[in-house]
Amino acid sequence: MSLLTVGTVAFDTIETPFGKAEMCIGGACTYISWAASYFTNKINLVSIVGDDFPQSEIDLLHGRGVDTQGLEIVKGKKSFFWAGKYHDNMNKRDTITTDLNVLADFNPILPKSYKNSEFVMLGNLTPEIQMQVLNQLESKPKLVVMDTMNFWMDIAWDALLEVIKRVDVITINDEEARQLSGEHALVTAAEKIHKMGPKVVIIKKGEHGALIFSEGKIFSAPGLPLAKVFDPTGAGDTFAGGFMGYLAGQEDLSFESLKRAVIYGSAMASFCVEEFSIEKLKRLSNEDIKERVDKFVEISRVTIY
Amino acid sequence: MSLLTVGTVAFDTIETPFGKAEMCIGGACTYISWAASYFTNKINLVSIVGDDFPQSEIDLLHGRGVDTQGLEIVKGKKSFFWAGKYHDNMNKRDTITTDLNVLADFNPILPKSYKNSEFVMLGNLTPEIQMQVLNQLESKPKLVVMDTMNFWMDIAWDALLEVIKRVDVITINDEEARQLSGEHALVTAAEKIHKMGPKVVIIKKGEHGALIFSEGKIFSAPGLPLAKVFDPTGAGDTFAGGFMGYLAGQEDLSFESLKRAVIYGSAMASFCVEEFSIEKLKRLSNEDIKERVDKFVEISRVTIY
Repeated sequence: MSLLTVGTVAFDTIETPFGKAEMCIGGACTYISWAASYFTNKINLVSIVGDDFPQSEIDLLHGRGVDTQGLEIVKGKKSFFWAGKYHDNMNKRDTITTDLNVLADFNPILPKSYKNSEFVMLGNLTPEIQMQVLNQLESKPKLVVMDTMNFWMDIAWDALLEVIKRVDVITINDEEARQLSGEHALVTAAEKIHKMGPKVVIIKKGEHGALIFSEGKIFSAPGLPLAKVFDPTGAGDTFAGGFMGYLAGQEDLSFESLKRAVIYGSAMASFCVEEFSIEKLKRLSNEDIKERVDKFVEISRVTIY
Repeated sequence: MSLLTVGTVAFDTIETPFGKAEMCIGGACTYISWAASYFTNKINLVSIVGDDFPQSEIDLLHGRGVDTQGLEIVKGKKSFFWAGKYHDNMNKRDTITTDLNVLADFNPILPKSYKNSEFVMLGNLTPEIQMQVLNQLESKPKLVVMDTMNFWMDIAWDALLEVIKRVDVITINDEEARQLSGEHALVTAAEKIHKMGPKVVIIKKGEHGALIFSEGKIFSAPGLPLAKVFDPTGAGDTFAGGFMGYLAGQEDLSFESLKRAVIYGSAMASFCVEEFSIEKLKRLSNEDIKERVDKFVEISRVTIY
């Protein structure tokens, strides 16, 4: 099924305790598209770059079944750029630079062929742009998922709530769920967020896994203990891409299917953090993914009686 | 099978955002014994109190199958007392008062009938006392488990390492595992701790559940999202008590059994935090425990294919 993804396509400069990567490929939409491309090959990408963005990277996305008609390339301008540095324990990072560049004037126009996309993944971006995309759709999608972050809660609260009202699923991390709901307990936070719109609330807990709250039911996906987290950048986007790609590929929106989708998303994110940028995501095999998913299932399996 | 437990039996004054409990019953050994008593009724308790400790509480333990020959009652002296205050999010607490009282001179003497205990649970206490207990055993137990905390890493490093060398299982929280091993990644931390002695490393992650590392295998037990954590005091001790009680009751030390034991320990801890002190632990039914265990299994169950 067709999957529309909107978000940034960008350059990142990342410093971790393990090294530094200058001007590597980044952006939420990039991670989402690469992760989703292992599960579905009808991806409609919506984003913006400058003419500094390498055509070779766009060609690689084509090769993965990504339609880039919706990727606006602005001549004479630069792509969005973010530089950050992670602390020793990888749980905190400092933003060194944020150059919006082309993103400052991003006004997404959906190509005609995108307007009936059946699955819509609103990557982390200003709520205004997420809303502009929703408003251009000509038929009701089977599923709309949004990812967001605390930054938009701080500076664009009302616009954010408007988008939240219109989505089926929201993915946020535990601290953001607390900020959004004003509740500390995640069960209560999820209840309040349900009332804002989304039937399904997915709370990402980094190394501790993820929780789904839906229809009064809860699923707790484990985190896979990794010996080395090389670079956490893009893990949340990759999670969202794997989750949404799996659902678009399966066309099954039952709670059991959502659980599997969260395991696939978690597996893809666990690959993402093993190398800088999208390097590892570029060269996975289906066998790699199957093995990793099996590990997630294996470590959480228990029989009591 | 007989289960020896050593640790504090004490009074606590606890303040949480939900209320204050003055001079309530506390202590690691209390929580361990109550939790374990739902799974085995041959518990050999080793601890010390002053003559201010209510006989009625000791009688209740008797009623649960706890042998208190090893509970020294010191006339004219006071029981160990701890007062603490939890912050809003319950993840951090301040110690207001620590009065060692009788604990300052605790020199445990094991009753003859305790010396061949088959399961030994060394509750959180000075490593010296934990060692004194081990040294009085006359036959090798089937399983020795120790609980400890960062405080002993700070002030009694060498003595702590001596105890760690002699136990089969260690239970510590994630930050403590990092401090003990000097490694941030929990997989690597567990590997280093294995080399210090324990074949099994159990890392408690509070609301995020627990991990078992054993024989190169990993199990991730979920945390049960609770709407209200009323008082986290004793949760780690209760976890240890449920874990060890289950194993002593089952006499099965396979990895599959350890996994079940961690689920039972987690279930008992989830009850503990719902009320002050040992209140909830005093009035559980087997049906309550079964239902709670089923919830833990239910929220982590997933079928991929």
